[in-house]
Amino acid sequence: MSEADTKFRKPAGLPAPIGHRRWAIAEGFIPSGSTGPDPSMASHETACLLNAGERDAHVAITIYFRDRDPAGPYQVTVPAQRTLHLRFNDLRDPEPVPRDTEYASVIEADVPIVVQHTRLDSRQAENALMSTIAYPSD
Amino acid sequence: MSEADTKFRKPAGLPAPIGHRRWAIAEGFIPSGSTGPDPSMASHETACLLNAGERDAHVAITIYFRDRDPAGPYQVTVPAQRTLHLRFNDLRDPEPVPRDTEYASVIEADVPIVVQHTRLDSRQAENALMSTIAYPSD
Amino acid sequence: MSEADTKFRKPAGLPAPIGHRRWAIAEGFIPSGSTGPDPSMASHETACLLNAGERDAHVAITIYFRDRDPAGPYQVTVPAQRTLHLRFNDLRDPEPVPRDTEYASVIEADVPIVVQHTRLDSRQAENALMSTIAYPSD
Amino acid sequence: MSEADTKFRKPAGLPAPIGHRRWAIAEGFIPSGSTGPDPSMASHETACLLNAGERDAHVAITIYFRDRDPAGPYQVTVPAQRTLHLRFNDLRDPEPVPRDTEYASVIEADVPIVVQHTRLDSRQAENALMSTIAYPSD
Repeated sequence: MSEADTKFRKPAGLPAPIGHRRWAIAEGFIPSGSTGPDPSMASHETACLLNAGERDAHVAITIYFRDRDPAGPYQVTVPAQRTLHLRFNDLRDPEPVPRDTEYASVIEADVPIVVQHTRLDSRQAENALMSTIAYPSD
Repeated sequence: MSEADTKFRKPAGLPAPIGHRRWAIAEGFIPSGSTGPDPSMASHETACLLNAGERDAHVAITIYFRDRDPAGPYQVTVPAQRTLHLRFNDLRDPEPVPRDTEYASVIEADVPIVVQHTRLDSRQAENALMSTIAYPSD
Repeated sequence: MSEADTKFRKPAGLPAPIGHRRWAIAEGFIPSGSTGPDPSMASHETACLLNAGERDAHVAITIYFRDRDPAGPYQVTVPAQRTLHLRFNDLRDPEPVPRDTEYASVIEADVPIVVQHTRLDSRQAENALMSTIAYPSD
Repeated sequence: MSEADTKFRKPAGLPAPIGHRRWAIAEGFIPSGSTGPDPSMASHETACLLNAGERDAHVAITIYFRDRDPAGPYQVTVPAQRTLHLRFNDLRDPEPVPRDTEYASVIEADVPIVVQHTRLDSRQAENALMSTIAYPSD
């Protein structure tokens, strides 16, 4: 903390956990092709999970498809005061997320978290990026 | 579900349907030009619709323009527990969505859904992507 | 409306206007350089305004800067049942929006509207796109 | 203000400050590589802060990581009626934000502000852009 800025007072009375316990991401698509170096430039779809609270978050992800029953739940833990940038590419249990397939996801946690959705698409020579806050719901 | 992770308990008491029944997307523009292979790399504008509930969603889309009356309603069904990534490019009835024309859309459903908006622009050699959660309203 | 889909019923009882009367966009930056054909590929920053209601929307935009007083109000009208994709590049009265300068904006209307923010950056050979729902507030 | 548009009336009765006092950005990643001219084309991650109110905003930022305790608070002031587009790259006190590392952030202020998140990734020849409204919470 800057010693010089003596006027600053961290806002008090804001101890409530930040976030929601249910989130949805209606967009999902993992391209099978990539042109950049793996893994940083591999095409990937990410759910960025922030647990700013003081209790670990046990998270269950369900994947929805166009023409089959949902897959999951995929389970991850986001420790207290930590963030996890979860690549859908890396989900394995109970089954991998199929490539070149449109999907959507619902993310449920037992404590409030914050979820942001990002895709890096490197199918062509230069990358494309997109990101959005997920849809919060309790 | 992983048998090993015995500490995990799926959050209970969260049976409410996720989403809203009305959504708006103020941005819309389908470029007429594309440089990539069709259809995956064709320029397109998509409304990703997620129906995580247990009843089919009957969806009506109205398209707004700058200088003419709205078009629609375009009707689609998103079955229960399914997602539909609807390309505005593919809408035909009652009329196609004009290319190179600024538009906006309102999406109404008879059950809660979640809507995310994505555009792939391939007018130039390398694609550009953008995405945002739509605006929820009931 | 498709005559064949006789099961569809447009949701009733949803007549309320959609949107908010105040919105904020904290990001704003109009690059002075462009490489594509003007105007479609010129670098631009857009506020997409949707007025899905039945009364014209009179809109006032205020531009905030880092180191000077705000500019505006810039005034535009979005007719009932119309959308206006307003380029900040085109604002002239009371003063143009400076290029290569970080700004933010507050958009106020006398009826509910929906606002989405988009930037096309064509400073390099291939375009980059970004978009987000604006921040709604009443 | 345009003298000609005599029908326009700026909406009255909207004096409340716009925004929230707590925001979260679950995505964060500063690539160490750049290909464009510095600083405008250097890869950067930005929190755009808008203080449209009449009192200065004292802002404290906490950075969360995957596998270590949070860093911060980083402190900045956004004067009344000003915007600050804060690059995470530029944070120094109490420590720089590490490159090529996944992080997330919580932004707290003593008055309502609006926060939008933007990344410019210039690791490859052509830039990629992404932006989203941050997650508001009080």
